[in-house]
Amino acid sequence: MENIAEEVLKGNRLALAKAITAIENEYDNATEIMQKLYPHTGHAYVLGVTGPPGAGKSTLTDKLAKEYRRQGKTVGIIAIDPSSPFSGGAILGDRIRMNSLTLDPGVFIRSMGTRGSLGGLSHKTADAVKVMDAFGMDVIFVETVGVGQSEVDIVKAADTTMVVLIPGMGDDIQAIKAGILEIGDIFTINKADHDGADKLATELNMMLDLDGVIKDWRPPIMKTIANQNIGIKEVVETFGKHHKHIEENGQLTVRRTERTKNEMLDLLDSRIGQYIRSKVVDTGKLDELVAVIKAHETDPYTEANKIVHDLLK
Amino acid sequence: MENIAEEVLKGNRLALAKAITAIENEYDNATEIMQKLYPHTGHAYVLGVTGPPGAGKSTLTDKLAKEYRRQGKTVGIIAIDPSSPFSGGAILGDRIRMNSLTLDPGVFIRSMGTRGSLGGLSHKTADAVKVMDAFGMDVIFVETVGVGQSEVDIVKAADTTMVVLIPGMGDDIQAIKAGILEIGDIFTINKADHDGADKLATELNMMLDLDGVIKDWRPPIMKTIANQNIGIKEVVETFGKHHKHIEENGQLTVRRTERTKNEMLDLLDSRIGQYIRSKVVDTGKLDELVAVIKAHETDPYTEANKIVHDLLK
Repeated sequence: MENIAEEVLKGNRLALAKAITAIENEYDNATEIMQKLYPHTGHAYVLGVTGPPGAGKSTLTDKLAKEYRRQGKTVGIIAIDPSSPFSGGAILGDRIRMNSLTLDPGVFIRSMGTRGSLGGLSHKTADAVKVMDAFGMDVIFVETVGVGQSEVDIVKAADTTMVVLIPGMGDDIQAIKAGILEIGDIFTINKADHDGADKLATELNMMLDLDGVIKDWRPPIMKTIANQNIGIKEVVETFGKHHKHIEENGQLTVRRTERTKNEMLDLLDSRIGQYIRSKVVDTGKLDELVAVIKAHETDPYTEANKIVHDLLK
Repeated sequence: MENIAEEVLKGNRLALAKAITAIENEYDNATEIMQKLYPHTGHAYVLGVTGPPGAGKSTLTDKLAKEYRRQGKTVGIIAIDPSSPFSGGAILGDRIRMNSLTLDPGVFIRSMGTRGSLGGLSHKTADAVKVMDAFGMDVIFVETVGVGQSEVDIVKAADTTMVVLIPGMGDDIQAIKAGILEIGDIFTINKADHDGADKLATELNMMLDLDGVIKDWRPPIMKTIANQNIGIKEVVETFGKHHKHIEENGQLTVRRTERTKNEMLDLLDSRIGQYIRSKVVDTGKLDELVAVIKAHETDPYTEANKIVHDLLK
């Protein structure tokens, strides 16, 4: 394909897939594609979906996507997979998402693996969102498992963030709840027909009130049974309310400015990481250093300072 | 305290706590402390413990620590907490670990929060391990929730890594299992009296065999009921066997060299990240850039390239 960016803008799905692959694998053309697509971004509304493993986030997201489709909106879904740290591949893969949605030309689903190096995932995800945005998707879901810090960082970059929980989870779920309490604009208790749904709702309400800060948006607690399609419309309505709310009070602009800032920093970190590796790893310098460090002739801190001094102006 | 590093080497627990606090908060004296302690490291054996939330990792680690104590070994525990991404504090905290262990002068437990910025957690954890090592701990546990990539990266830096699982977890546990399958030297099924323990063992065995690669160490699958102290001794024995195995075949040296390399890169990323922030954020340049980017006068990719060009030699 000669000009991937132009084809994306024309609505070519194959080009969309290729663009995201280029980003994911850091192909040489990735930057050029993004430079061309960037002016065409800013239209899509980005929804973050996070929560502990087993909360049924994928099923819920699929149902919400269908509801948006029913309303005539196009939908992109980016699912961040907890992937094998060694083989590098995404595990859940698109395989599991092979359902009626994948046959709908108004929907594009993409898994992205946590391929490791450079912590580049957050800026890669941000770029994938932009590609889908430029392609013309109205709504873009970014779905992560809300345990790792980097995964939480990714999802909190959304315009509206939904935290999905389920009743009756294990010991340290308490910690996770607290950890993601502050990032949720909306809390959804999925599998709400299971024992303990009301208890969880009460706990969440208490935790949200405990906060003490008076906010102009009190995160609502929704209940769904995603696989029975129960509560789906209501969640979509609530997304709409939150969107309207933050648009009116200016928060949407604030959030997006903050997002641009963080993306810029991520991008810088990633670029500089690549530069360091080209100067320190590819040249064999790192191996030399490790040998003298292991021999206790010097220490990593002194050597890191020297390298930083050498590399920076 | 005048000289924290010297006090750590003398076995002063308060100094140990202060040193780790200095690392965690990036105090000015952190680098100096590490430079002084580094020559005294390399003695401790580092055990990584990871697994999904609710697997009972903390309880299991505590019991294993007690078994090591019974054998006369000193033990450090570093627990990585899934923390609030906004308030920044660790959530589980030391509170939960306030048990008989904390009264034992041969044990030191420390939680470290995933305080966000710079992805500095892995090099901070590595430094905390070194402080405990220099202090004289024989065995150091590093415990993380094995879902996020960064958390997995941290734990896989150990000499021996144990993955803890429990029977009967939710939908996408399959993905997590696969994701951490390759990092486990030892798999432990905790809460082995629960339904499905045998099924999980069979599944794990299948997945490990599916791998196809012939290895000189086939990860054993252990069963424990940590809160009843069942299977604890056997796990400690297995740690010992793995230690002996990788010492004899040279893998221990290979792993530690690899670890030193990765730590060096983490350290460089962190140092250069600080430098970028001092040049780009603190000066207000980022705000200016974001304003022109938001106005679509330029794009983040072009600007990031310019900054990299300006900052690096």
